[in-house]
Amino acid sequence: MQSFAVRAAIHIAAIFGIYLSLAMLIPAFADLYYGNNDWRVFALSAFFTGGLSLAVALATQGRPPVVSSRFAFLLVNLLWFTTAAAGTIPFLASSIDMKLSDAVFESVSAVTTTGSTVLVGLDGMAPGMLLWRSILQWMGGLGVIALGLFILPFLNVGGVSYFKIESTDIEDRPFERLSTFTISLMAIYCLLTLACGIAYAAAGMTGFDALNHALTTISTAGFSTHDDSFGHFRDNLAILWVSIIFMFIGGLPFSILILLTVRGRLDALRDPQIRAFAGYTASFAVLMTIYLRLTSDVPFLEALTHATFNFVSLVTTTGFSTHDYAAWGPFAVALAFIATFPGGCSGSTTGGIKAYRFIILFELMANGLRKLVYPNSVQPVRYGDRPVDEDMQRAVVLFIASFFVLWGLSILLLASTGLDLVTAMTGSLTALTNVGPGLGDFIGPKGSFADVPDFAKWVLSLAMLFGRLEILAVLVIFTPVFWRR
Amino acid sequence: MQSFAVRAAIHIAAIFGIYLSLAMLIPAFADLYYGNNDWRVFALSAFFTGGLSLAVALATQGRPPVVSSRFAFLLVNLLWFTTAAAGTIPFLASSIDMKLSDAVFESVSAVTTTGSTVLVGLDGMAPGMLLWRSILQWMGGLGVIALGLFILPFLNVGGVSYFKIESTDIEDRPFERLSTFTISLMAIYCLLTLACGIAYAAAGMTGFDALNHALTTISTAGFSTHDDSFGHFRDNLAILWVSIIFMFIGGLPFSILILLTVRGRLDALRDPQIRAFAGYTASFAVLMTIYLRLTSDVPFLEALTHATFNFVSLVTTTGFSTHDYAAWGPFAVALAFIATFPGGCSGSTTGGIKAYRFIILFELMANGLRKLVYPNSVQPVRYGDRPVDEDMQRAVVLFIASFFVLWGLSILLLASTGLDLVTAMTGSLTALTNVGPGLGDFIGPKGSFADVPDFAKWVLSLAMLFGRLEILAVLVIFTPVFWRR
Repeated sequence: MQSFAVRAAIHIAAIFGIYLSLAMLIPAFADLYYGNNDWRVFALSAFFTGGLSLAVALATQGRPPVVSSRFAFLLVNLLWFTTAAAGTIPFLASSIDMKLSDAVFESVSAVTTTGSTVLVGLDGMAPGMLLWRSILQWMGGLGVIALGLFILPFLNVGGVSYFKIESTDIEDRPFERLSTFTISLMAIYCLLTLACGIAYAAAGMTGFDALNHALTTISTAGFSTHDDSFGHFRDNLAILWVSIIFMFIGGLPFSILILLTVRGRLDALRDPQIRAFAGYTASFAVLMTIYLRLTSDVPFLEALTHATFNFVSLVTTTGFSTHDYAAWGPFAVALAFIATFPGGCSGSTTGGIKAYRFIILFELMANGLRKLVYPNSVQPVRYGDRPVDEDMQRAVVLFIASFFVLWGLSILLLASTGLDLVTAMTGSLTALTNVGPGLGDFIGPKGSFADVPDFAKWVLSLAMLFGRLEILAVLVIFTPVFWRR
Repeated sequence: MQSFAVRAAIHIAAIFGIYLSLAMLIPAFADLYYGNNDWRVFALSAFFTGGLSLAVALATQGRPPVVSSRFAFLLVNLLWFTTAAAGTIPFLASSIDMKLSDAVFESVSAVTTTGSTVLVGLDGMAPGMLLWRSILQWMGGLGVIALGLFILPFLNVGGVSYFKIESTDIEDRPFERLSTFTISLMAIYCLLTLACGIAYAAAGMTGFDALNHALTTISTAGFSTHDDSFGHFRDNLAILWVSIIFMFIGGLPFSILILLTVRGRLDALRDPQIRAFAGYTASFAVLMTIYLRLTSDVPFLEALTHATFNFVSLVTTTGFSTHDYAAWGPFAVALAFIATFPGGCSGSTTGGIKAYRFIILFELMANGLRKLVYPNSVQPVRYGDRPVDEDMQRAVVLFIASFFVLWGLSILLLASTGLDLVTAMTGSLTALTNVGPGLGDFIGPKGSFADVPDFAKWVLSLAMLFGRLEILAVLVIFTPVFWRR
């Protein structure tokens, strides 16, 4: 790694910090509007962040570096790291008086769109602070989509990209239409957020709730303005179905949404990952509905709505909940555990292992089994009707292996702080997949991460960042080969 | 699959059944010697098994089939299936009056060298029955070694075989020295069992205990003659160290043991899987010893012995225990959970994922990360100083992927019977890796599988068979392509 490349990456992160400081003015205005004194916190945070970012940006000016894999990896890590750091400032400065570990955990959970929280007492919290959490998640969601569409596929880390898969004529010159594409993406993300907010309000949410939940639904992130999350709206089935629809949309690849809306290409929906994602999401919802009906006397429509809501929320890695589904019985617990793994589509706002990796993995498995019976059979690994190249196959295996190795390590680290097996296991899992709630005595859907030991919060914060950057993008930073000149 | 191949496989399994019926005479003589009436059970079982096997063997006589991958897969499955079925007969016929699901579970747990038990009251049980359990495990262990050395490597399923890796001049004509090799294997297995038994007796076990535990130690299987397992010998550190040494030997590749003893080749010990196996086993023992010393006032030698014993027992997939290590604290629980995965060396009596797969997986991961930074780097995946071919790489990935998919499925199936998450998760894990004890309220190191629901026992029995035959050897049987003519 050349020092001028590091310098250039810091420069870009600093420029981004300036934008971030502007975003802090939104909660400042909200607090002013609602007559809350916390507006000073955000004004000050904006001033501090903006000033520091400007200073760093000026100090690191220079010629742009040659674009390389290593530069891109470094930049991506730096962007998420500095955004998380800047996000921490209002938490530390505010009147709710958070410890450093708590503030970092909350900020990382926000920008990684995880949605685990250490805060209790959301219902009475200042609107600016609630809005700040929602805005961080919304920006995190947009960042994740950009990462998944524009950056990771070219680093061979992950992603079935618009550019890499959709159409070969574009693949040859991806950057020719980059600006159109970026504008379409921003427009669709904003329009979907607006639509979600309006639908929430129409279904009965207050304006402020509708705004916050729209920001955290489309980003499949999961922060709520209520300690009880969507338990607060449990009896309003219309609100729950609005949420189900927009969480599911958030789990779709945005490249496809662009093709669909901008060019009216209905055939884009035939992407195999969409079918897989829709298939397993529906399976979880159906299994849970059947189990709820068999083991309780909840009426069918409620059972269907609550089962669908909570499992769409888990599979899309949103993390909203209407109930403590862990209390629905052992099968519900196991199903929720399994539903924490898969995630949604590549190029969406979801985390987790992701549908396309499962498709490629199952193709690899089917091929491998065939080869055991017919050692000489030759059949390419396919994604839909396209062959999957060696790089992609390797990246899928590498991701899944790294995922399980990191999971095992996190379990041991969390258990060393005294956390029980279920909490250690589901806590690290929900962090790595950016889902939000875990299982067990206190980090479950109705609990919070407030009582988790400090050291465990640092481990979980790191796990959330790993998960958000598709693990490999962070892991390479830790290899000696990365830093070689 | 040709029908004459199926017929030939059944013929071989029937011949094996005749030998098995002879083995039933050993517990018959034991019961006679100790004056127990159960000798009739074994005599009858032997008569029934022998007669049926003979009849089937005669009915399926014919020309031997062409040796093919499919024939080998079928035969291996059939052998374990019929051995497990025959092993069930004395359990069903005996005075302890077991249900079918219990008898099948116990027999499968024995022949797969798992060591989970549904029986309670072992201390007062008839000697013949105890001996039968031990003999089944001992035969299972020998079968596993044979499978791992002679069959699976040629099916590309698993294994770093003597023939495939050790020496190229033998590789070219593997069957020329097969008989020498087989005789050496049998001799070393018997001599190690004898040595283990003598050492146990010298350290203070009764002759009967020494015999039984020798049979189940060298096979890393884990049945005991006491409900309290090695808790019965907890204060006799000499017995525990004898067990540690022989469990560890059982985790070594028998091909290497043969090279070492028959040809005096000390360099054989440089096999990378041995270093990896020794390395992680020692790490578990050291971590546990430190944790025990930090959290309790157990004297150093006891802490070291008990930590080493229980974790060598877990890593070698034996499953003996001296204590309820789950009561040692959350870190001990998490460490025991992680220690249930790895297993020992290929060509040993252990189950689990196995050291060589980790070596190849980590090589794949290191290579993959290097390629992310330098996309054009070309470096072969290596096992020690040999390159690993594509078939082996594919088999490793296929095994690990199948392992986790089956694990997830079993968790859901077990949870559907009402078992809690920890029991469902560790129960299916310990079955798939053939370890023995799980974690949680009742299947832990001091518990038994007696209270597990019937359906769960069937699922676990299947999981044990899958795990024992390295998953893939069973999985191919379920593919349509396998049965195509």
